[in-house]
Amino acid sequence: MRTIEGISSIGANFRGIDSVVESGGLFGIWNHPLANKITYFGLHALQHRGQTSAGIVTKDENTFTSFRGRGLISHIFDTEDKLEKLVGNSAIGQVRSATVSDQADDSNIQPLLFHFNNQSIAITHNGNLTEALSLRQQLEDEGAVFSTNSAAEILIHLIRRSKKNNFTDAFQSSIEQLNGGFNFCLLTDDALYGAVDKHGFRPLVIGQFSNGAYILASETCVLSSVGAKYVTEVQAGQYVVINDEGYHITNYTNSQKATLEPMEFIYFSRPDSDISGINVHTARKEMGRRLAKERPTHGADLVIGVPNSSLSSASGYAEEHSLPYEIGLIKHQYIGRTFIQPNQELREQGVRYKLSVVESLIRNKSIVLVDDSIVRGTTVRHLVELLKGAGAKEVHLRIASPPIRFPNYYGINTTHTEELIAANYTIKELNELFGSDSLGYLSVKGLVDSINFDKNIPDQGVSLDAYTGQYPSDIGDYQNEFQESLTPLQKKIIKGEFSDE
Amino acid sequence: MRTIEGISSIGANFRGIDSVVESGGLFGIWNHPLANKITYFGLHALQHRGQTSAGIVTKDENTFTSFRGRGLISHIFDTEDKLEKLVGNSAIGQVRSATVSDQADDSNIQPLLFHFNNQSIAITHNGNLTEALSLRQQLEDEGAVFSTNSAAEILIHLIRRSKKNNFTDAFQSSIEQLNGGFNFCLLTDDALYGAVDKHGFRPLVIGQFSNGAYILASETCVLSSVGAKYVTEVQAGQYVVINDEGYHITNYTNSQKATLEPMEFIYFSRPDSDISGINVHTARKEMGRRLAKERPTHGADLVIGVPNSSLSSASGYAEEHSLPYEIGLIKHQYIGRTFIQPNQELREQGVRYKLSVVESLIRNKSIVLVDDSIVRGTTVRHLVELLKGAGAKEVHLRIASPPIRFPNYYGINTTHTEELIAANYTIKELNELFGSDSLGYLSVKGLVDSINFDKNIPDQGVSLDAYTGQYPSDIGDYQNEFQESLTPLQKKIIKGEFSDE
Amino acid sequence: MRTIEGISSIGANFRGIDSVVESGGLFGIWNHPLANKITYFGLHALQHRGQTSAGIVTKDENTFTSFRGRGLISHIFDTEDKLEKLVGNSAIGQVRSATVSDQADDSNIQPLLFHFNNQSIAITHNGNLTEALSLRQQLEDEGAVFSTNSAAEILIHLIRRSKKNNFTDAFQSSIEQLNGGFNFCLLTDDALYGAVDKHGFRPLVIGQFSNGAYILASETCVLSSVGAKYVTEVQAGQYVVINDEGYHITNYTNSQKATLEPMEFIYFSRPDSDISGINVHTARKEMGRRLAKERPTHGADLVIGVPNSSLSSASGYAEEHSLPYEIGLIKHQYIGRTFIQPNQELREQGVRYKLSVVESLIRNKSIVLVDDSIVRGTTVRHLVELLKGAGAKEVHLRIASPPIRFPNYYGINTTHTEELIAANYTIKELNELFGSDSLGYLSVKGLVDSINFDKNIPDQGVSLDAYTGQYPSDIGDYQNEFQESLTPLQKKIIKGEFSDE
Amino acid sequence: MRTIEGISSIGANFRGIDSVVESGGLFGIWNHPLANKITYFGLHALQHRGQTSAGIVTKDENTFTSFRGRGLISHIFDTEDKLEKLVGNSAIGQVRSATVSDQADDSNIQPLLFHFNNQSIAITHNGNLTEALSLRQQLEDEGAVFSTNSAAEILIHLIRRSKKNNFTDAFQSSIEQLNGGFNFCLLTDDALYGAVDKHGFRPLVIGQFSNGAYILASETCVLSSVGAKYVTEVQAGQYVVINDEGYHITNYTNSQKATLEPMEFIYFSRPDSDISGINVHTARKEMGRRLAKERPTHGADLVIGVPNSSLSSASGYAEEHSLPYEIGLIKHQYIGRTFIQPNQELREQGVRYKLSVVESLIRNKSIVLVDDSIVRGTTVRHLVELLKGAGAKEVHLRIASPPIRFPNYYGINTTHTEELIAANYTIKELNELFGSDSLGYLSVKGLVDSINFDKNIPDQGVSLDAYTGQYPSDIGDYQNEFQESLTPLQKKIIKGEFSDE
Repeated sequence: MRTIEGISSIGANFRGIDSVVESGGLFGIWNHPLANKITYFGLHALQHRGQTSAGIVTKDENTFTSFRGRGLISHIFDTEDKLEKLVGNSAIGQVRSATVSDQADDSNIQPLLFHFNNQSIAITHNGNLTEALSLRQQLEDEGAVFSTNSAAEILIHLIRRSKKNNFTDAFQSSIEQLNGGFNFCLLTDDALYGAVDKHGFRPLVIGQFSNGAYILASETCVLSSVGAKYVTEVQAGQYVVINDEGYHITNYTNSQKATLEPMEFIYFSRPDSDISGINVHTARKEMGRRLAKERPTHGADLVIGVPNSSLSSASGYAEEHSLPYEIGLIKHQYIGRTFIQPNQELREQGVRYKLSVVESLIRNKSIVLVDDSIVRGTTVRHLVELLKGAGAKEVHLRIASPPIRFPNYYGINTTHTEELIAANYTIKELNELFGSDSLGYLSVKGLVDSINFDKNIPDQGVSLDAYTGQYPSDIGDYQNEFQESLTPLQKKIIKGEFSDE
Repeated sequence: MRTIEGISSIGANFRGIDSVVESGGLFGIWNHPLANKITYFGLHALQHRGQTSAGIVTKDENTFTSFRGRGLISHIFDTEDKLEKLVGNSAIGQVRSATVSDQADDSNIQPLLFHFNNQSIAITHNGNLTEALSLRQQLEDEGAVFSTNSAAEILIHLIRRSKKNNFTDAFQSSIEQLNGGFNFCLLTDDALYGAVDKHGFRPLVIGQFSNGAYILASETCVLSSVGAKYVTEVQAGQYVVINDEGYHITNYTNSQKATLEPMEFIYFSRPDSDISGINVHTARKEMGRRLAKERPTHGADLVIGVPNSSLSSASGYAEEHSLPYEIGLIKHQYIGRTFIQPNQELREQGVRYKLSVVESLIRNKSIVLVDDSIVRGTTVRHLVELLKGAGAKEVHLRIASPPIRFPNYYGINTTHTEELIAANYTIKELNELFGSDSLGYLSVKGLVDSINFDKNIPDQGVSLDAYTGQYPSDIGDYQNEFQESLTPLQKKIIKGEFSDE
Repeated sequence: MRTIEGISSIGANFRGIDSVVESGGLFGIWNHPLANKITYFGLHALQHRGQTSAGIVTKDENTFTSFRGRGLISHIFDTEDKLEKLVGNSAIGQVRSATVSDQADDSNIQPLLFHFNNQSIAITHNGNLTEALSLRQQLEDEGAVFSTNSAAEILIHLIRRSKKNNFTDAFQSSIEQLNGGFNFCLLTDDALYGAVDKHGFRPLVIGQFSNGAYILASETCVLSSVGAKYVTEVQAGQYVVINDEGYHITNYTNSQKATLEPMEFIYFSRPDSDISGINVHTARKEMGRRLAKERPTHGADLVIGVPNSSLSSASGYAEEHSLPYEIGLIKHQYIGRTFIQPNQELREQGVRYKLSVVESLIRNKSIVLVDDSIVRGTTVRHLVELLKGAGAKEVHLRIASPPIRFPNYYGINTTHTEELIAANYTIKELNELFGSDSLGYLSVKGLVDSINFDKNIPDQGVSLDAYTGQYPSDIGDYQNEFQESLTPLQKKIIKGEFSDE
Repeated sequence: MRTIEGISSIGANFRGIDSVVESGGLFGIWNHPLANKITYFGLHALQHRGQTSAGIVTKDENTFTSFRGRGLISHIFDTEDKLEKLVGNSAIGQVRSATVSDQADDSNIQPLLFHFNNQSIAITHNGNLTEALSLRQQLEDEGAVFSTNSAAEILIHLIRRSKKNNFTDAFQSSIEQLNGGFNFCLLTDDALYGAVDKHGFRPLVIGQFSNGAYILASETCVLSSVGAKYVTEVQAGQYVVINDEGYHITNYTNSQKATLEPMEFIYFSRPDSDISGINVHTARKEMGRRLAKERPTHGADLVIGVPNSSLSSASGYAEEHSLPYEIGLIKHQYIGRTFIQPNQELREQGVRYKLSVVESLIRNKSIVLVDDSIVRGTTVRHLVELLKGAGAKEVHLRIASPPIRFPNYYGINTTHTEELIAANYTIKELNELFGSDSLGYLSVKGLVDSINFDKNIPDQGVSLDAYTGQYPSDIGDYQNEFQESLTPLQKKIIKGEFSDE
């Protein structure tokens, strides 16, 4: 990095349990003469997965070059010359949404780049290791010096301390020790590596260019954006090694159990991506249709979706009931990274800046408002108020996924029970809190059937912990926190004593 | 201005006839303690009308403060302190899309601020004076020194050379001399002024806050964004003076003739704005419905709109024929101001960055693609190719407005005949050029009826010159250019010898 | 200019009488293929004449390109590409120290660039027009619109309103109307112009390259810095036209009377510059020698100069009395433009940041401290304190020029009587105020003889108004201010009733 | 760090033997309420020791805050709020001149900040470990992961791998393992540490404020700049622990042998600093006087010093021979960090930008040009040419230190024999190469006597390796490089077969 300017304020207690939670989008490419630019456009197509920082490392023979920064990829690489300095035929890159605890610390911006007397390694990852804290403490007790706050660095220490004779063996024996949800992407002098956790919580796909070069990416939408063809997925419990001889996938564990994170379908992925052959837009539209069947609305005049992630399910809902689907909420296109937000005084004045209502559509109408999911409930409460303020006669909230009632420990930032409104209230109570005229969620079965994965495996291969509190794997260092923060409602759900589906 | 850093390269022939063409959004506020912030959020709500530059001038007693810059309003005011330095209770501001000829010259960024020994004047405008060139030349021959390339400065020179005894009289006598399409917004020590050309090509509305303060704005969507109520429009041939005693509207001419620019409905305005009581989204949906009736598509599987301005008309089209309306094109949300674009090599590789197709929706389907209008034809040709490349069986292009066949001289950047593809080709020829399976435009009558203005005035108060070549007023300095550049097709249309409606 | 970002806060009373006071360094070049770079290095060699803003305009045929900014020339042109965009064989440029009243307004950064239907003009100047205010008011009353706060724009208005048939005649008739102290440098499609006021308050020299190209510059030190040879000076009441046929000097007035501003020798100019054949360092050293003769110091141990402008005179003083000349004050080399200054608390703590004392040299010594001149007296008071605090036994202040007792209206920022400490106190009183053990100034005769200009003209061609209150020319709009602000001491001096030489 | 944006290009062979060479200035403060600001002004006073990067880490209880950047300290902290974010009563900071090999890598900018589960450590250093390469390789072989290229990180790894029970013991046992020249400054939760290598190649002083707070600094000039009093030096083979109970100095080795790097007197330190009680300016003046005695110049007209480090010795030379001391070379004050340098074409044109000659002083004169030392010889050759080009009759070069003939491995960037011109040529040959009329160096004895340290220890406690090739301690990893690069002249000198003193 050429310029470091900034404030890093980190106390001795900085490694709070959530600090290593990562989300984001990964990209890797091996042996393509346009590696830097394809990585740039690949990350651009993954930008929806993270907007707070990004970076690219390229490899030219055994010389590695890194460029990282805060903000959008188009902001970080604002001139072509920055991209052109990233020389080499192979690269990895990442876009990321920083968690609160590491926002102040640029050393965590990925990819990380390490140099040793016998090799260099660039690494990036998303997800969360459930034993990050205890693993790190154990390593430090053995003399390890960490320079970042990242799970990726834990993997590097494990690899370097491995007694295995070659890098691939050291890599495999190291990821075997990791639990939680993760995708790793590594670039060494000799190969590009990609690894997926034992549950395959989020996708990692392999693509190929007409010139034979391979890429790794978090979503298939990248493939069409950069002109590559789909090859296959790296599945739960697998890693891939890509080098000049092609790609080679290895099962590194026998305990793999595919449980995809459903938010990939509900919210994270771009509508034009496919996951295990299922198109995201199509699945969302189906969620809308099933929601319409499960939770119909009588006497509604029109259906509105919350832009942009709920537009597919809203049109599915409208179509199922032959209701007009309208563009009733306008999302402002020009909200910059450092946008000045209206203060209390201005908000009281009536100043709005993110969403506008098409008042003439709404006035005196009974509205079905479809949203994809509810975490904190702040936005949805604001939207109901906005629509009612614009003259809506009735607002019927329909949520195209089940209530999120339990925290996630595999890499999604819904770690804390207190931030999950549905962990504390029943649907009936939520309807009152939101001020809506009715509130309906999609059922867990409805969600699973809308995605329609392999019916022969448990839960059709979807992780339902957020709705049921049944975690597909040990939650490691989080066990105490989980137990201590359980709400009465959560306790009842776990015991099977409550359901408001 | 505190820092000026940049390159301004302007030759002696810099004042090409199109150089004073302006588009953009205006805002003005009188006597509100939050003038700076409300202007900021007001301009934010007008951002869709111009993204290349913006500025605000505030007035505190007789002290005027100005802040202007390139880019989005949220980029220019990236910290609150910049906004807080703009002290005072009254303000004017502008967002603007620079024309090619003035992109290099920051002195044209508005509002302009002038100081005289007896007063200060801040001014901003949009539109185009059809006699800007001859007026300026005449003023320079009389010794005038221009510091910008802007029509706004012409008005200042006229005002300062006027022999009238007071500012309002000087202002009125000056705007009487101006022809073309324009809205002006001026802030003086004593009042806020707004003026509209004799034809009212584009709207200017007055709003009021609960505390009594007035605002002027280019669109009604501003009103709900800042919490103000609609009062009235400043109409063709009128100007308004807003001061501590309220607002006062004057008719400055007897030759007014309302002919609204239809692109305000078709493309420019935000869907939640109303123009003369007609909602933009509703008018667009009606254009889609009438287009469906006029140009039906047999055997189509689904309807897709080009995001974002064509989504309303596309849903209207789909609804009229009970076809599924689908989100088949994804517009990338994160294209920054200084985005690195793929070069030829990457485009050949297949790299795309603005729009993605949801391939699984499109494959083997017969598609109706609705776009709002066609100027150059480049985008629509690319879209047909994209859809066919994604496996679409048929692509039927439907355009929710008539063919644009004549240049505009009143403030829209469609000044040059050579840039208008429909000035050169019939619809049948265009269909072949675009590679579409069929091509249908909305008729002129269909457009006018969709907007549905006052039926008692000619053309229902809509300017149809772009379609017919019949200009509602003298085109002044452009007369020669117009005549010399007429294509054979344009000549036939003017003579009434051709129509392919 | 490409980006304008900043705050410009200017009230209706912004044109205070001092607002057009300009200092700075000018540069012009005609017909050299490296015009942009030579102008850059030429301005770099003039940087000591002004550090707050700078700019360059180049001319390529009839295309003019401008780049201006705040700060040092090396800060404004921080990359070569900015310089390379300034295409063309001819150029003018300026470095400037902004006066307080225009610091907030970037539109005043020079060169100014004007475009007319029949020509373009770039202009820059230094100095001050004594009738700027009345001239501007008269022009505005006739309808002129000013876009800056600069005397240069007044000249442009005069030229454009002139009825003369060609530009040179219009230029000559316009500068004939101007009084005060000024150098102008203009670049038009056809020629490079340089003009000097009727008194020649500050120098303007012509140089020539081996390839025949000419330059204009404020000091001869530029010539050796860019590799050009001295040709001649443009003298009082002259202007020069440089074009492809060479240079041509014209006397535009018969009332010229050479009275050089002595601060050019005392403080402004670089030691390696010559003015009318006299070297600045040599003149300063002579001032030090004559000061030593006029104001000897008995029992002094060593001589110290205030870095950097007093080092020459200090070594002259030391040499005259065979005292050791020592480097007793260290000037910090790294004080940046935006340096954070110690607040009151830190100053009380003892924090210093501009000058350090070599304590071991000073302790228990009797010091002669030589400074070039005293304006406000703040620095010299601080220095005496610093030396005494470091253990100096005695501090004898010796000032190598006479007491500045009257304001300057010809372009130096000593406009206000209240800022001139010697306008209010006798030398004896000043000695007490400064805390020095003795205080001695160079006499007016000593100054004039040190410079040693032509002995055949009054005051040897040096302007002595700062010391005597006798102004060489009418002070125009400043007459009232001057009379009203006269101190009792000034009144006595004017009447010849007081002298403490 | 808040923003990381930049290019880091480092190959697998990036840890070349010179890559860990560090110079710079250190500062530390314990328990002062103005720690951030005093550190800022302290580093400002050390700015001459390094201009490429700087940083500060403050400690507030157990929260550490870091801000680092490229360029001058006043550039990095360009606004007060950046400084104010550095909260806490204790701090360490550094200014540094990056070596070529780490210029591209911001991770090396100091202080480094490490967090462990049981403590945080901030660290900064200057100097060079002669066994850095072998130590690092050994640590990496044991599984250590390095994130920087810095000797400071080696110390951290040693400390963390130490089996000692408390931090101070671990620290002591770690520095005992280090050879070479170094000063370390560490800040932990409990104390401020400072350590000096066994030879005390460069100074580290302790100062105290009136409120009792202690500081550590590389030079005494800091003390007067921040208002602190001198306490003592940390000497060769010692470390100091400063905590709330005061300061405690420990001898960590019995093999200490004081050999100060003489360049501290000759070039590095500020003239107002004292080293072991000897003032730098006074020592330099004495070097000039002894040089005058050893190498007189017959028939010289005047003496000139190369600004700024040679001005003291030049005035000593002049005084010894009663020759006039003149300011004949002007150093440009305004050379920015990113200064555009003249290319070959401009240099041929005669463009100069760093030093100007006062031609009228030089012309036809016989000049003594005093410089402090010669490394590559490029500058001195250029200066002779410049003076001759300005008309000097004769130029007699006098160098106020002995010829630098051997590389330094203890922290000065004169590591490579090929860069030392005097390693290859005799003084007689150098005189011809430089084009001077005579060339004289100060003798080794003259240097040692000018500094005048304790006469009772070998070489009076000054390291003479640069002149003699006799290194005071093992040069570790550099042994092979040293032997292989020996020039014939160096070989003769080592064998005692050549001397041209």
